Amino acid sequence: MTAPEQLTVVADNVDARMIELLDAECKKWTEVDPRLTELVDELARMVSSGGKRLRSAFVYWAWRGACTDADEVAAGEAAAFDAGAAFEFLQTFALIHDDIMDDSAYRRGAVTVHTANAQRLTDAAWTGEPRRYGEGVAILVGDLGHVLADGLMAGRGQRVAKLWDELRIELNLGQYLDLRSAAAGDFDQATARQVATFKTALYTIVRPLQLGASLTSAAGAASAPAPGQVSSRWSEEDYRQMLNRLDRFGRPLGRAFQLRDDVLGLVGDNTAMGKPVGDDLREGKPTELIAHAVANANPAQRQVLEQIGDRNMSSDDAQRLVNVVRETGALEANEAEIERLLGESKQALATLDFQPEAVEALDALADYVVERDR
Amino acid sequence: MTAPEQLTVVADNVDARMIELLDAECKKWTEVDPRLTELVDELARMVSSGGKRLRSAFVYWAWRGACTDADEVAAGEAAAFDAGAAFEFLQTFALIHDDIMDDSAYRRGAVTVHTANAQRLTDAAWTGEPRRYGEGVAILVGDLGHVLADGLMAGRGQRVAKLWDELRIELNLGQYLDLRSAAAGDFDQATARQVATFKTALYTIVRPLQLGASLTSAAGAASAPAPGQVSSRWSEEDYRQMLNRLDRFGRPLGRAFQLRDDVLGLVGDNTAMGKPVGDDLREGKPTELIAHAVANANPAQRQVLEQIGDRNMSSDDAQRLVNVVRETGALEANEAEIERLLGESKQALATLDFQPEAVEALDALADYVVERDR
Repeated sequence: MTAPEQLTVVADNVDARMIELLDAECKKWTEVDPRLTELVDELARMVSSGGKRLRSAFVYWAWRGACTDADEVAAGEAAAFDAGAAFEFLQTFALIHDDIMDDSAYRRGAVTVHTANAQRLTDAAWTGEPRRYGEGVAILVGDLGHVLADGLMAGRGQRVAKLWDELRIELNLGQYLDLRSAAAGDFDQATARQVATFKTALYTIVRPLQLGASLTSAAGAASAPAPGQVSSRWSEEDYRQMLNRLDRFGRPLGRAFQLRDDVLGLVGDNTAMGKPVGDDLREGKPTELIAHAVANANPAQRQVLEQIGDRNMSSDDAQRLVNVVRETGALEANEAEIERLLGESKQALATLDFQPEAVEALDALADYVVERDR
Repeated sequence: MTAPEQLTVVADNVDARMIELLDAECKKWTEVDPRLTELVDELARMVSSGGKRLRSAFVYWAWRGACTDADEVAAGEAAAFDAGAAFEFLQTFALIHDDIMDDSAYRRGAVTVHTANAQRLTDAAWTGEPRRYGEGVAILVGDLGHVLADGLMAGRGQRVAKLWDELRIELNLGQYLDLRSAAAGDFDQATARQVATFKTALYTIVRPLQLGASLTSAAGAASAPAPGQVSSRWSEEDYRQMLNRLDRFGRPLGRAFQLRDDVLGLVGDNTAMGKPVGDDLREGKPTELIAHAVANANPAQRQVLEQIGDRNMSSDDAQRLVNVVRETGALEANEAEIERLLGESKQALATLDFQPEAVEALDALADYVVERDR
């Protein structure tokens, strides 16, 4: 399925904003010391290597849906694109740091930051350990992305600030639980679902939606409330209700997104994903799909599944594991669950008191999220 | 020299605020999943391991100095301690990430986060490489500190937000230049000074001072300007002038601080610093002190100095290097430069139109910064 127009139009605007900001940073630091811009260049390289820009689309369309008229849209659109760009910088930061933790050599087809900079030390015959240097640079490139994200999200009022802090903590904790579970061998379904709730349902869908809609509390300087005050636009009760409705739309969609990701991570086309098939199995990522397979495996199948997390797994081994997962019925059950969750999500979408073009866009995004092939 | 009272009183309040926030996070996440609190616990362990809390003292006393009366002090003190705590969380984040890059096993006498968590994987006989796991956890603990820092700094108006973004980018770029110079063997004086400007003069002194004073633009909700507006409290011209004066006080003091740090890193008491003597030499940190020694060395001395950056340097080798640095007259010249810079800084302090108790406090802090023995 190709990306819907409502996604690409947001992506184009958000990308332009990110590039504008990166160009300004490059220009500023080149004048101080050209070596400094290498850090900005690396961030730009990762930003430009692609990504679906899903989070910024959810931000944008939830904001559009919560606007009351064309004047409000015209006055607040730049802030909505800024918030979208903030999410994409945050995502780039998270991916750069994740790639260190997983030691991934490629991301979206591009060489990862820690890999490229380790190679740079070797090529230049500099002093030190290539791995430590590469990872050090990647930590800093990620941190820079985090700061730029944050700069774009500043000054949007208390409600936005609160959500922005919360989602960043959830992102961190989700990644920790992911890392820890893979290390400790916790492949139970409850852990897999907890990780997916933090990293996908909340961070990728629910929080972007809620934050986008909250921008209407403080979109422009003129109508914005003073710090510490909430907007008169939404009473506390109406605001709570809106957040809850967006949660009911986004949470099942987020779970469906994760279940689709699990399938693509297992049997997807590796060139489209930009990472080799079997990587998720080698890393021992705790997914609901694998948890389902383990729970329904017979003793012989279970023995094969115990190879999960083996870093030295061959392609043949990985293929045998995939076959066993299929035999347990886990893939079929997964597809049924995705359909059920999409239905639940769309029912909640109908309860949102949003502008029609926004409802249409969110509907198209929901389909894309579960039917995508990368 | 023991820490002045004006430092310890701020440190106590800032520490209490940090612990309060960490306790709240612990409580919140224990209820979701006790494993999540391990990340918060690690951050709390590093926060509690000490630190001089210099940055928060500069924030606080610059804010106090810029206040006009007791009412303003009473209304804004909580925000000033919050901003101080934000700096200390940011510093903890930076140190945790720096310790990965330098592979330091200890910090302020405590085992570093990446070292402790690598050991944990080994002790628990979990799957994976201890080093990668330990560093992954440390990246996330650092990132969590960054988010908490940011949450404390939100909603203080455009001027504060701008400074906060700028100093975080400077911190990042300074650390990159430090890392890169050590790897590339760039030990020239200009590079050493550039790194010191970013990491010490600006990040440790000038920016905390400027940000503290800027809190008077938006200390409480009542008098705060709307987002996008600047406070009527300071006209743009007065505000610029205040920032410039604080720069003239803080920048020479920051250079003096760095020069003192360089001495302590070379010949200081290792138990007081919490890191082994010779570490700076082994890491090949580009310092002005070393640059001065290299520039003034005779051929025989220069040959000894070329060992800088050798990770396997013995204690005897390190001691011989220290002796050579001393023989070049670099230590003596360094002390003279510290005195000159302190004088320059104190002259600028006299031009600040600040409350007397704040001027007295900043004077005591300046003495402490250059005379401290750890």
